[in-house]
Amino acid sequence: MRTIDWNDESNSVVMVDQTLLPREYKEIECKTLSSLCEAIQVLRVRGAPALGAAGAYGIALASFLSGAKDMETLLRDLQVAGKALKSTRPTAVNLGWGVDRVLKAVSDAYDMKGVREIALSEAKAIADEDVATNKKIGALGAKLLEDGDTVLTHCNAGRLACVDWGTALGVVRSAVAEGKEIKVIACETRPLNQGSRITAWELMEDKIPVTLITDSMAGSVMRRGHVNKVIVGADRITQDAIFNKIGTYTHSVLAKEHEIPFYVAAPVSTFDFEGWEGSVKIEMRNPDELRFFGSEQIAPKDVPVHNPAFDATPMENISGIITERGVFYPPFLLDEVKV
Amino acid sequence: MRTIDWNDESNSVVMVDQTLLPREYKEIECKTLSSLCEAIQVLRVRGAPALGAAGAYGIALASFLSGAKDMETLLRDLQVAGKALKSTRPTAVNLGWGVDRVLKAVSDAYDMKGVREIALSEAKAIADEDVATNKKIGALGAKLLEDGDTVLTHCNAGRLACVDWGTALGVVRSAVAEGKEIKVIACETRPLNQGSRITAWELMEDKIPVTLITDSMAGSVMRRGHVNKVIVGADRITQDAIFNKIGTYTHSVLAKEHEIPFYVAAPVSTFDFEGWEGSVKIEMRNPDELRFFGSEQIAPKDVPVHNPAFDATPMENISGIITERGVFYPPFLLDEVKV
Repeated sequence: MRTIDWNDESNSVVMVDQTLLPREYKEIECKTLSSLCEAIQVLRVRGAPALGAAGAYGIALASFLSGAKDMETLLRDLQVAGKALKSTRPTAVNLGWGVDRVLKAVSDAYDMKGVREIALSEAKAIADEDVATNKKIGALGAKLLEDGDTVLTHCNAGRLACVDWGTALGVVRSAVAEGKEIKVIACETRPLNQGSRITAWELMEDKIPVTLITDSMAGSVMRRGHVNKVIVGADRITQDAIFNKIGTYTHSVLAKEHEIPFYVAAPVSTFDFEGWEGSVKIEMRNPDELRFFGSEQIAPKDVPVHNPAFDATPMENISGIITERGVFYPPFLLDEVKV
Repeated sequence: MRTIDWNDESNSVVMVDQTLLPREYKEIECKTLSSLCEAIQVLRVRGAPALGAAGAYGIALASFLSGAKDMETLLRDLQVAGKALKSTRPTAVNLGWGVDRVLKAVSDAYDMKGVREIALSEAKAIADEDVATNKKIGALGAKLLEDGDTVLTHCNAGRLACVDWGTALGVVRSAVAEGKEIKVIACETRPLNQGSRITAWELMEDKIPVTLITDSMAGSVMRRGHVNKVIVGADRITQDAIFNKIGTYTHSVLAKEHEIPFYVAAPVSTFDFEGWEGSVKIEMRNPDELRFFGSEQIAPKDVPVHNPAFDATPMENISGIITERGVFYPPFLLDEVKV
């Protein structure tokens, strides 16, 4: 199934619970807005494009759950739901983008039934478009990969970060579908190990050769000539920087040092056209993510921890941004993307 | 107590079991050579200088355990013990250095009793010298630190990597002892988390301010101006490179990019004066270290893994090497160190 979808029978949001991977593949159902918010918060569903769909489906879900007796109350309920959804992950621009797109669509409705119908059809359209978008990103990005390339990636910008196919890994999938032999080096991506838990898992499912390394090994494997390209996803792209999983900036410096092309693959919905690095709030996560691994204690219980979810990579470290509207190159004039 | 020591009553090697930190502080006794080899192999004792003492005490232990009836057999037993000890960690030069120094010392003995006495006194001398050496490294290195500095370090080059005091953290300790305010950023050091488990623990014990980050955050904190110096230890120093815990090279590239001084603190016993990078065998560790964290599965069970214990940092990335014989600067003519 898709990473996130709508169940027409129970009018609920269904998703793959990614916190259980790779031990267990399990689909879960969110029947309430709070269960969906919790799922976003603890990363049962994660990845910028998938969060766009999650935000959109969240508004659809809220429209079905609302006990409102009139149009005005219903629309107010949806606004409240939108705020709750957006607050779960403050840095991810797609989440708010999905929420806002559905909220805007329902403003055209004539009655309450119309609100529900429009909310759901808009959310489904967002999910379908995401798959189509990723396929386009994949096709455009695949041209940048040569037969025999090894791609280093960070975190998971794969099909489980999207509705399907993937952005960074979508590029790899498209190249493989074209018959190119591509290998992937997956960085485990501390502290939540999306690289080892999710990227390694989904590539193995697809029989794409993958080797797992710790994040700290990236420099060493680049120095030994094992990496031809770096491709990562993005959570927000401002006029001056790419916000992506913490560790991305480190990889960009290493790629520059070793003259390895560093690409970002992301849908246009990831762009924050008016934003600058300084205006973006970086989500700080629970310090216990570095003190414990599941039940294992790996640091003193009270050690001070710095745990930002994202870092900012300045545009000068980036070789190209692969979007569904084309591949953009320095100096990255965002107006070209906007059009 | 010291990280590793000799128990005169039971004639055995005692050590802090570092695999249990930070959950539990426990001293264990190795009464057989195989238990000592196991302890080295699974990193109950680790860190280049501590391994020098472990190798030395290992030969002393073997001299007490040997059932040899004559001198020739006893010396052969010690040679066999030395090979077994050295094979446990192939990259660490200090381990072999400690073994060889005791083996050389016992060659002066007149009888079997003399072999045991000399082996033990030489091993104890090595341990005592290590503490004195670290204090010298600390005093020399402390001059490089300014009041208010924040030092980023990787892995554990602290007192638990040595017999006492520490190399990289010895420099910090000496600066703090001189009244300077120094903060430390400890990288957790995947896959075995010596940074979060051991460095964070020992700095907190000493009330030196420490903040824990994932290895991947190093670039981000440097870019934000939070790091004034990087200081790491070393497991082997050849004519062209520093071998240290995997991830060190990545930090060196990041430090260069951000114009942050990158120091290596290590005793002269770490130098492999004739060696070159290409001639050093890098220890490859068990892939399961990246697939599991204790009982937690964090990657597909059969995912291919690249797991070198060390990487090589070329000399051009290093600002200075702090030894007990002085601080050495580029172009790092090892002959100066040797004298």
